[in-house]
Order: sequence, then C-alpha cells, then structure tokens
Amino acid sequence: MTRPRGVVVVTGSELVRGERTDRNGPFLAAELLRLGIEPARIAIVGDGAAELEAALREGLEADLCVVSGGLGPTHDDRTVQMLARAAGLELAVDPELEAEIEGFSRRIAERLKRPYGDFAEGVRKQATLPAGALVIGVAGTAPGLVLGRNGSAVVVLPGPPPELQRLWPAALESAPVRAVLSRARVPDRRALRFYGASESTVARALAEAGGEADGLTATICAREFEIHVDLVAEKDARESADRLASALRERLGEYLFAEDERPVEALVLDSARELGLTVATAESCTGGLVAARLTSVPGSSDVFRGGIVAYANDVKAAEVGVPEELLARHGAVSPEVAQALAAGARERLGADVGIGVSGIAGPGGGTPEKPVGRVYLHAEGPRSGLARELDLGGDRAAVRARATAAALHLARALLAQIRDKGA
Amino acid sequence: MTRPRGVVVVTGSELVRGERTDRNGPFLAAELLRLGIEPARIAIVGDGAAELEAALREGLEADLCVVSGGLGPTHDDRTVQMLARAAGLELAVDPELEAEIEGFSRRIAERLKRPYGDFAEGVRKQATLPAGALVIGVAGTAPGLVLGRNGSAVVVLPGPPPELQRLWPAALESAPVRAVLSRARVPDRRALRFYGASESTVARALAEAGGEADGLTATICAREFEIHVDLVAEKDARESADRLASALRERLGEYLFAEDERPVEALVLDSARELGLTVATAESCTGGLVAARLTSVPGSSDVFRGGIVAYANDVKAAEVGVPEELLARHGAVSPEVAQALAAGARERLGADVGIGVSGIAGPGGGTPEKPVGRVYLHAEGPRSGLARELDLGGDRAAVRARATAAALHLARALLAQIRDKGA
Repeated sequence: MTRPRGVVVVTGSELVRGERTDRNGPFLAAELLRLGIEPARIAIVGDGAAELEAALREGLEADLCVVSGGLGPTHDDRTVQMLARAAGLELAVDPELEAEIEGFSRRIAERLKRPYGDFAEGVRKQATLPAGALVIGVAGTAPGLVLGRNGSAVVVLPGPPPELQRLWPAALESAPVRAVLSRARVPDRRALRFYGASESTVARALAEAGGEADGLTATICAREFEIHVDLVAEKDARESADRLASALRERLGEYLFAEDERPVEALVLDSARELGLTVATAESCTGGLVAARLTSVPGSSDVFRGGIVAYANDVKAAEVGVPEELLARHGAVSPEVAQALAAGARERLGADVGIGVSGIAGPGGGTPEKPVGRVYLHAEGPRSGLARELDLGGDRAAVRARATAAALHLARALLAQIRDKGA
Repeated sequence: MTRPRGVVVVTGSELVRGERTDRNGPFLAAELLRLGIEPARIAIVGDGAAELEAALREGLEADLCVVSGGLGPTHDDRTVQMLARAAGLELAVDPELEAEIEGFSRRIAERLKRPYGDFAEGVRKQATLPAGALVIGVAGTAPGLVLGRNGSAVVVLPGPPPELQRLWPAALESAPVRAVLSRARVPDRRALRFYGASESTVARALAEAGGEADGLTATICAREFEIHVDLVAEKDARESADRLASALRERLGEYLFAEDERPVEALVLDSARELGLTVATAESCTGGLVAARLTSVPGSSDVFRGGIVAYANDVKAAEVGVPEELLARHGAVSPEVAQALAAGARERLGADVGIGVSGIAGPGGGTPEKPVGRVYLHAEGPRSGLARELDLGGDRAAVRARATAAALHLARALLAQIRDKGA
C-alpha cells in the first residue's frame, strides 16, 4: 500500500521571483511527512492567474493539497477564485464570515481613522468562498479553508508563516483532512545528529554499515556545521533501522551529539539547567546571534543571564573587561581576546559559563595573517575552558551563522565535559 | 510581446520533505528576473522517477528551464535519465567527459585508499548524456549541461549551491541560452517601501492612483511590519509607472520610508553615518536580534558601537544602569524601563543614539495587564527620543522578529527627525 500523496502549492510573486525565501513549503512538507503522507512536490508560483490555476489543478490530483498565500483583500490575491475555477465550483459570499471579517476591519478602520467604506470591497472579497468550503479560522482578515473532494482534501492557508502555522492544527481537525489521514501510514523516524565529521565521512560510515534496505530510507543532510542523518522506516523495516542506527553510533560515536530534533541552543540550555549553571555571552563578529539563538528557546531566562555585543574595541575593554594591553598585543581577533571575552561575560554578567566570540566576518578587515573567515571561540566554565580556531568560507552572513553554530557547539561540549568529569 | 517564460525545477528528497530549505530556486529565479525572463514557477520534487519526470515535462514547456540537483553517481540521482525520457532523447556515454570524470575519481579513490573499480559504474553514469547536450563544465564529478530545443533551452546544474552558482555563468554563455536571452526584455523596476500603513490602505491608494496598466504590474507584499510595493514596467509603460509612483508618494507620503531595496537596518546605519552619529542597543525580549540585524550589514562597525542583552533584571541594573527603583516600581516590561535601557545603551556604550527594547515574547510571562506580545520600545538621541508601545500577535519567534523590525523603524524615524529638524 502506498502512502497518500501530498502536494504543497505556495503562491507569492516575491517568492517565485526569488526576492524572499519561502518558509511555508518546508514547514508543510515536514508536517506531511510526520503525519504519514508522502510530500511529492512543492510548487511555488506567482499571483498570475494562469500559472496559479495550473498549479492548483495539479494540486487537486493529490490526496492532500495544501495551498499557502493569495488570500489578501487585493486584486492580486487570487487563490480562492482560481481554486474554484480549477475545481469547477461556484463562488458565493458567506454572510457569517463576512460579518466576522467586517468586525475586524472596522476596528482597523477606526485605528487608522479611515472610513469603513475603504475596506468593504476587500471584506466582501475575503468572505467569498467556493461552494462546500469549510472555514477553519480567520487570521487577521484572511480565512483558512478546507475543501473535501471524493476522499481527497484541499487546505488553503494564509501566507504569513505565523498565521499559517496557527491555523494548521485546525485544518488537521477538519473532517476532509481526517479522512485522508486515516489512510496515512506514519513511518518510524530516527534522528542522529553529528558534529565535527564531514558529509563524506558520514556517507561512508552509512554505506559500510549496510546502508538503505527495503522499507528503510536514510537521508544525510549537511546543515551549517552539523550532519543530520534521518532514518525513515516502514513498519516491517524497524529492525533494520535499529541495526543501522547502532552501527552508526559505533562508527561515529565521537561525533554524535544528539538523537533528537532539539537544536544545539536547546541542548546548551538543557545541559546547563541540569547542572544548575547559568550562561552569558560576549560576542564581536557574531553581533548578538549567539544570544539571539539562546533566547529563541522559551524559558531560556532561567539559564541565560545576558550578553554583550562588544563591537568597538573600547566597548570590549570597558564593558567586558578585556585588558587594553591584550587588545594591543594580540589584536581584537585573537585566541587571547576570545578567552578574555568569555571570562568577562562570566564575571560581568554573573554567569557560571561564558561564551566568547571574536572574528572577521568580512567582506573587509582581513589580513594575510588573519583572513576573512578567521574566528576564535572560547567557552569558559567555573574550573575549565575550551577554545577553538576556525577558518570559515562563504560570505558575511555565512561566516556569522557558522561561527554562531560553532560557538553553541563549543558550549555544549564544555557542558558535556563538566557533566562527565565534574570538571 | 510577452517576456520569455522561465521555470526552475529543483530535485532533492531532503528539500521536498522540508528537511532543508532550498536555496537554488530563489537564486535562479532572481537571476531569471534580472535577465528579463519571467520566473513562472519553482517546482521542488524528490528523487522518485515519476514525480521528477512530470516536473521536467512541465519544465520543457517553458522557454528556459533550469534544473538543479540529481546529478550524483548513485542510483537515486535520476535527473539526466528522466530529462532524456521527458524530452524523447537517446542517452549515450560521452567518452571525453568520461575521461575527465575518471581522472577526478581516480584521485578520490587514491585518497580514500579504495580500488577505482568501486567508482567506475558511477563515472559511466555521470558521463551518460542525452543526445545533443552540451557540457558547460564539471563540478566534482557532476557535469553541468545545456540542451537546446527549437529556440527554448534546458540548463541542468549540480545541487550544491556553490557549484550551481559557479557553473551558472557558463550556462548563460551557451548558444541555446543566448538564443532565449535575445528575446528577453529587462523590465524597469521601482520599489516603494511603506511602514505604519496596513496592506489594505496601500492597496486602496494604489487602486485610487489608477492601479496597474498595460505593461505595468504592481505587487503589494506585507513583510513583517512593512508594506513593499514593486512596480515592474515594460519599456512602453515607464511613464505610467512614474505617474503611479508619484501618486503613491502623494497619498501615502507619511508612511513612505524608502524607494530602494535597502533593509531598514541599512537605512539606520546610513542615516547615522551621514549625521556623524553612533548607535548602541540594550535589548531584553529581542535577545540580541536588533544588534544582529544591525551588524549583518558590512561596514556597520563604524556606526554600531555595541549592545547589551539584558535578560536578568540585575543585568539590566548593573550593566545598563537601569535604576533598581524603576524596575521595582514599573516592572521590567514598561515604557520607563525601555527608556532607561535606551539611555543606558547611550551612556554605557558611549553612543549618540540608544535603542531600548523590553517586552514579553511568550509563551509564558504574560499577565492580564501586560499580555504576551506587549513590547515597549525607545530610541534616544542626543537631544530627543521616541517611544512606542506594541501589542504583537503570533508565537515567540514572531513577537521577537516583529519587535526587532519595529525597534529598527523607531530608530530610523528618530534619525529622520534629527536630520530634518536638527533635533
């Protein structure tokens, strides 16, 4: 029995033109996979009627089609109209929905001090639905819809990712989607996360360990400095998956840092919390990204005390306490200053563990001795520390993102060492 | 005359499953747009034969189809085979290409201390081409190809983004692609960026100003708190575009903050630089994101002095100098503390302009008086300041991202005020 087929249609001119990177396609595809539906295609189209209609027609051939975007009040938001055309359904205004969107729009009109008349046409447009569509919720003035068709289902969601993600659970509760999900088969998934090994090394170990088997697929994916291996096993291939996972643990144990989906910032916070330790940062070239990743985790405030972005040299000296003499002798980008930043973060911010980052993100500022991409990291604990030197390729954004990931992994390694050795 | 139609086909199981976000589609789409070809669709499919062949068939209907990925040596890399099938072309080994890939593979085999025989089948596979295909270069062991078909062209490139981007210029030089580009028309583009107006208000103003015309398309796109209007005009519609842009300036002048593509963090830095002012931040709920966005801009170090992420209350007091009495009386999330954070950033970090952010990002920490999403912002200059209170919807990531954008816009507004009034 094959798995139900899922298709994602994403609409937005700025997305098909490459002016913005779509986030909804990957989110929805991962959701389909998790639910036991095979993500077969993500189609990104603009707001032109012909291209959108063609993509929706193809989407209607899937067991579950999820559409994102094109639900706004303006003329170039055509998803509902084109869906009705592709599905051969009449359009009509839903009076109840119109009243709900009108209420919301009147409040906006009031706040903006504009007559409601300016909004009426858009409200009417947004309350116009294909025959038989279910409203699963409203995000701002845009309704989320579900349409059932002979055992298959179409879900239509607003484009802004937070609103799409908020309405998605309601779509899963709807009868047409539940009918599709009743035919889904949720595979068994195992995540192995490696750090410090190359993609080739992991691929090689995977092949030597026996590799894929009937009903067992293995994907290897490099993500910043991590290598993510995902084993997806059908019911009758679970033993093969267990064997493969064990063999990988044995061969690559020194690089394995997690067997779940928690990002490294969550691992750092969880380890520190278990040990009763607090964390602080002092960053130069990453400019706050390490602190931003740590504070992206809900509940981080019980572990993370704060951070200093020490961009100017006198800020490094005055705010973090990096000795001026050290800056003069070794330069701001040096192992010594990275260590002083980590130590200063501990001391000034009253934390047990300090993370220090100093480097050259580029495009300017490189020298023959210290080229663009050179980054020094230091993680300092109560009784021990770890240091790392990196030479990173790529542009400014890539250097900053990779240095941030490496700094978090260094803190993770230090916390593991403290846990294991009490050091 | 319409513009040649471009389609991008991206293949990769980890991409269609949402395990990784595709970067090639946006890169190629932006390239097509720049070259005067209309990016009509980005299709992301896995490595299954049927889905890939269907996507390639649709791609062959375009004037220019660019395919990324599926060129590796293993059985699940099927792009060339499926392209030949979709185009109805024979496959044959290219001896010259085989020799080139063999040389490369022998060096890999040596390094890995494996017999070359292990590689021979993969090499033969990678040297197998559809009849008439041009080799435009080799990335590792994967060849980039161009196929001409009755005035249209298909470009096949390897999946790793650096290799794809390296071979792309050679594809543009090939005769079949040049034939398509000779029919391309590079449009005239105008960007208008609004802040503080709703999408409906902008849409309404656009309609009242005459809206789209022959050869003139207008897209409206909400991005965090900004509304982006892009006018794309064919040669004979440039006057209509000028008229429309003037009318929008007149109607929405108070919200218009830029007529170029610079992000708000670059506008803040450029304004400060022009005025000879420096900038610093003190953030609570945004956890370093404001500093990270400011330092994402190359050359920010001549304006941005540093920032403090003051998560714990005693860090707010000790590091930023927020009076303990103020924290006790008004709470850490208050207009008073946001102002004290901005003032403290100026003073402690020796900057002319300070940006202070305090709020409740959630999911915990809300109260009836100060719910999740409440954020207080303050921008303080040498002689004046601006404050703002926000109630933001969405999850933790959305609240943090929107508060960050709003803080940058507040700083931009303060700098504009300083420039205009000398205040």
